[in-house]
Amino acid sequence: MMTDDTNTQRVSQILEMNAFDRKTTDIDQAVARRLANLGASSVLFYRQPIEMHSASGATMTAADGTVYLDFYNNVPSVGHSHPKVISAVHEQLKLLNTHTRYVVPIVDQYIESLKQTLPESLENIVMTCSGSEANDLALRLAQQATGGTGTIVTETAYHGNTALAISISPSAVKNGQLANNVITIPAPSPQNYGHNIAEGFRNQVVSALNEFKARNIKPAAFIFDSIFSSDGIFADPAGFLTSAIETLQSAGVIIIADEVQPGFARTGQAFWGFDRHQIVPDIVTMGKPMGNGFPMAAVATRADLLENYCDKVGYFNTFGGNPVAAAAGLAVLQIIAEEDLQNNALKQGALLKKGLEDIASNCNRISDVRGSGLFLGVDLSTDNDLAEPDPGYTVKIIDAMRQRKVLIGAAGKHGATLKIRPPLCLTSRQSEQFLEAFADAVKAT
Amino acid sequence: MMTDDTNTQRVSQILEMNAFDRKTTDIDQAVARRLANLGASSVLFYRQPIEMHSASGATMTAADGTVYLDFYNNVPSVGHSHPKVISAVHEQLKLLNTHTRYVVPIVDQYIESLKQTLPESLENIVMTCSGSEANDLALRLAQQATGGTGTIVTETAYHGNTALAISISPSAVKNGQLANNVITIPAPSPQNYGHNIAEGFRNQVVSALNEFKARNIKPAAFIFDSIFSSDGIFADPAGFLTSAIETLQSAGVIIIADEVQPGFARTGQAFWGFDRHQIVPDIVTMGKPMGNGFPMAAVATRADLLENYCDKVGYFNTFGGNPVAAAAGLAVLQIIAEEDLQNNALKQGALLKKGLEDIASNCNRISDVRGSGLFLGVDLSTDNDLAEPDPGYTVKIIDAMRQRKVLIGAAGKHGATLKIRPPLCLTSRQSEQFLEAFADAVKAT
Repeated sequence: MMTDDTNTQRVSQILEMNAFDRKTTDIDQAVARRLANLGASSVLFYRQPIEMHSASGATMTAADGTVYLDFYNNVPSVGHSHPKVISAVHEQLKLLNTHTRYVVPIVDQYIESLKQTLPESLENIVMTCSGSEANDLALRLAQQATGGTGTIVTETAYHGNTALAISISPSAVKNGQLANNVITIPAPSPQNYGHNIAEGFRNQVVSALNEFKARNIKPAAFIFDSIFSSDGIFADPAGFLTSAIETLQSAGVIIIADEVQPGFARTGQAFWGFDRHQIVPDIVTMGKPMGNGFPMAAVATRADLLENYCDKVGYFNTFGGNPVAAAAGLAVLQIIAEEDLQNNALKQGALLKKGLEDIASNCNRISDVRGSGLFLGVDLSTDNDLAEPDPGYTVKIIDAMRQRKVLIGAAGKHGATLKIRPPLCLTSRQSEQFLEAFADAVKAT
Repeated sequence: MMTDDTNTQRVSQILEMNAFDRKTTDIDQAVARRLANLGASSVLFYRQPIEMHSASGATMTAADGTVYLDFYNNVPSVGHSHPKVISAVHEQLKLLNTHTRYVVPIVDQYIESLKQTLPESLENIVMTCSGSEANDLALRLAQQATGGTGTIVTETAYHGNTALAISISPSAVKNGQLANNVITIPAPSPQNYGHNIAEGFRNQVVSALNEFKARNIKPAAFIFDSIFSSDGIFADPAGFLTSAIETLQSAGVIIIADEVQPGFARTGQAFWGFDRHQIVPDIVTMGKPMGNGFPMAAVATRADLLENYCDKVGYFNTFGGNPVAAAAGLAVLQIIAEEDLQNNALKQGALLKKGLEDIASNCNRISDVRGSGLFLGVDLSTDNDLAEPDPGYTVKIIDAMRQRKVLIGAAGKHGATLKIRPPLCLTSRQSEQFLEAFADAVKAT
C-alpha cells in the first residue's frame, strides 16, 4: 500500500525531467545570472529557459517577441494582467494596506463573498499568504482536534513547501523517507482500482486506518487535492470519493480538501473540486488563482476546529487578509461571475477533450485523455505498449509544443501525463490553436 | 536556564492584554462581522477596535475621520501608500506577474540589489511570501547541514506561524511545552546579565550547548532577532553578540539572523541589525518591510547550505520571487537610499530617545528607555517600584495614547515594554507630536 522510497525518488527525478539542469555548462548569461542569485533553489523550465517579458489573457510574450499560448499556468486564472484585478489592487494600494488587527470593511466583504461559495459549515476563514501556509495550518487544526498525527495522502501528492507540508508530500521528498505518521494510498486511477474506483479507494482508506492502528498512531487527517493534480489528474467518476470520506469521517478523521489547484471554477462542473464529489470537508484550503497572482491563500474551516486551536496556540499572519489581497480576491470572484468563466471552463474543456480524443484515436502513443473543465490530463506511452508510460516522450512533446508556441507541463507518478490547465478566459480560437499545435507535435515527435 | 511552562503561559496572556476580547458581549456591528468571518483567529487591537479607512506616510485615518500618528506598524516602513512603491507594483502588474521558472530580469535585478546590502558569503537568495516561510526554510537548511535539530532561541522569541516556526517560538505557545530540541536563553538585558551582557550571553550559549549534549541532541541552529523585539528590544551595547556567535560557530551551529523586524535600515546605525554586532550569520531571514506591505520575504544563505538542502529535498515557492514583488522590493531599496531613510531613522530615533529620557526623568513609572534608530523600547513599572514591570499600566498608556491619536504597542517578557517603531519617513514635527502626546499621557494616567 505504501509508496516505497526508491519509487518516491524515481518519481521526483522524472518530474524534474523538463527542468533546466543547473549543473550543465551550456548556459547563457541570463541563466547564469539566475543561478548565481537563486543558487540550488533555481528551477527553470526547459533545457533552454525562456526569458519572459509580458503576458495578457491566455498568452505570454517572451523577450525575443515570441507569443506563447499559455496552457500551463494556473495562477493567472482569470487571464494574465486582467485589467479589473490590476485596477482593484491599484486603488486599494492607494488607500490602505494593513493587517487584520484593525477592522477594514473590504476584508469582511471579501470573506463574506468567498463564504457564499463554500458549505455553510465552514464558517471561518483564516487568510494566509500561500497554499503552503494554508495546508500547514489545516494539518495543525486536524492534529489539535483529534489529538493524533496520522495523515493519509495519495502516493504522488504535493501539499506545499513548509516543513510540515513537505513531510506529508511524497512527491516533494527526493531521497527521504516518509515519517511513520504518513500513509500513502494509490491515486484513484482505473489502473490502480479497475472499474470500481469508489470501492477500491474506500478499501485503501480502511487499510490505512488499520495500519495506523497497527502502528499505534492516532489518525488526524486525510488531505487530498480533489482533482489529484500531481498524481496525474483523476476527476471521474464524480462522486467516487463519497464512500471513502464517509468512512473517514465516521472514524473521526478530519477531511481537508486542498483546492489550491482545482478550486475557483477550473473544473467547470463546480466552483470547488470537492463539490463534484458531493462531499462536505471539515477544512478547505485554497491559494494559487485566488488573487490571480497577488500572493494570497486561505483556510476555510469549521469554527470549532479553529476555536480549539486558537485557545491552545493562536494564529496571526502579518500579510494574510490585508485589504489589497481582499481587493484582488474580490475582483477575481466578480470576474468569474461576470465573464461566466465556470461555464467557459466547461465549454472549452469539452472542446479540448473532444479534440484530444480525436487526435488520440489516430495516435498510438496517447493512452488516455481525462479531466474536468480546464484541468485535463493526457497520458503518453511508449511506441509499442499503451500500458507503458513514457516520461522521455512526454518531455519531447513538451519541447515540441514549445516550438509550436504553446506552454505545457507534465504531472503524475510516472511524469508521463501532460497537464493542461490554461486560463479560464480561453477562447474557442485558442483551444483550436492548441489542438492544431498538439496534433502536429504528436505527428512530428 | 529554561523558561518554564507557567511563565510562557503568563507571558502570552500578558502580551494579549491590549487585544480586543473576542468572548466579550459588548461589541459593535463591524466587530461582530469580523468575528463571524475570522472566528477565533481574529485578534483586533484595542478594547474598542479601530475601523481604518486610509493611510499615508506616518499617519493612518480611521473611518470616523480621526487621523492617527502611526508609531506601531513596521511593515509600511518607507511610509504608508508610498507613491513610488504603488507605481512600481502597478507598472509591473500591467506587464507580467509570474513565477521563477521563467527568467524575468527584474527579479535578478532586485536580488542583486539586495545582495549588495548583505555579506558576500550569503550568495543565494530564496524568495518566499512571508517571514514565517523564510524562517521555516532557514531552520531546515540548518538541520540538513548539521544533521541535528537542537535550536537555541531567546525566552520570549517569536519567529513565525508555521508548525516549525511556532515550535521554536516560546512567545507563541499559550499552554504548550517547548519540545526537547528547543532550549531558551534569557534575553540580553542588564536585569538578566548585569553590566557584562556579552559574557553573560556567551555563558548562556555554552550552557545551552552543554544541555544539548546532556539531552543527546545535536545542535543545529541559533536563531535570533538581532534587536530582540519580542523579548523587549535589546540593542546595546552593539557588539555584545560577537563572542556568543563565535562560540556557536566554533561548535558548528548555524547562525540565523532573523531580520524580519530590525532589517531594512530601521536601526539607523546599520542596514541590518546583525551588522551592528559585527557578525556574519550563515543565514539571514527577512520579511515585513521588504515590499512595504506587498507580501514578500526571503532567505539569504550561504550557497553550500542551499545546495545541500536542495539536493535532498528541493524548494519551490509559487508566489515567491514573482516580478511584482521584485518591483515592490526594488522600489523600497531605492526609496531608502534616495530619501536617506537610514540616516533619518538615526536622527529621529535620537530625537525621540532624548525626549523620552527627559520625560522619564520627571516620571516615576518609566524605568528604562533604550533601542536603536526607530526601534525603541520604554519600560513601564509600578507606582512604587521601578524594578517591577507593570503590564496593566502599559495597557492604560496604550489606550491613553490612542486617545491622543497615536498608535503604539507593547512587547517583552512582561508585556510592560512600549515598542516604538514608526515608519522611517517620520518627520521631526511628528516626533515632537509623539513626545507631547506621550508626556501628556504619562501625566494623566
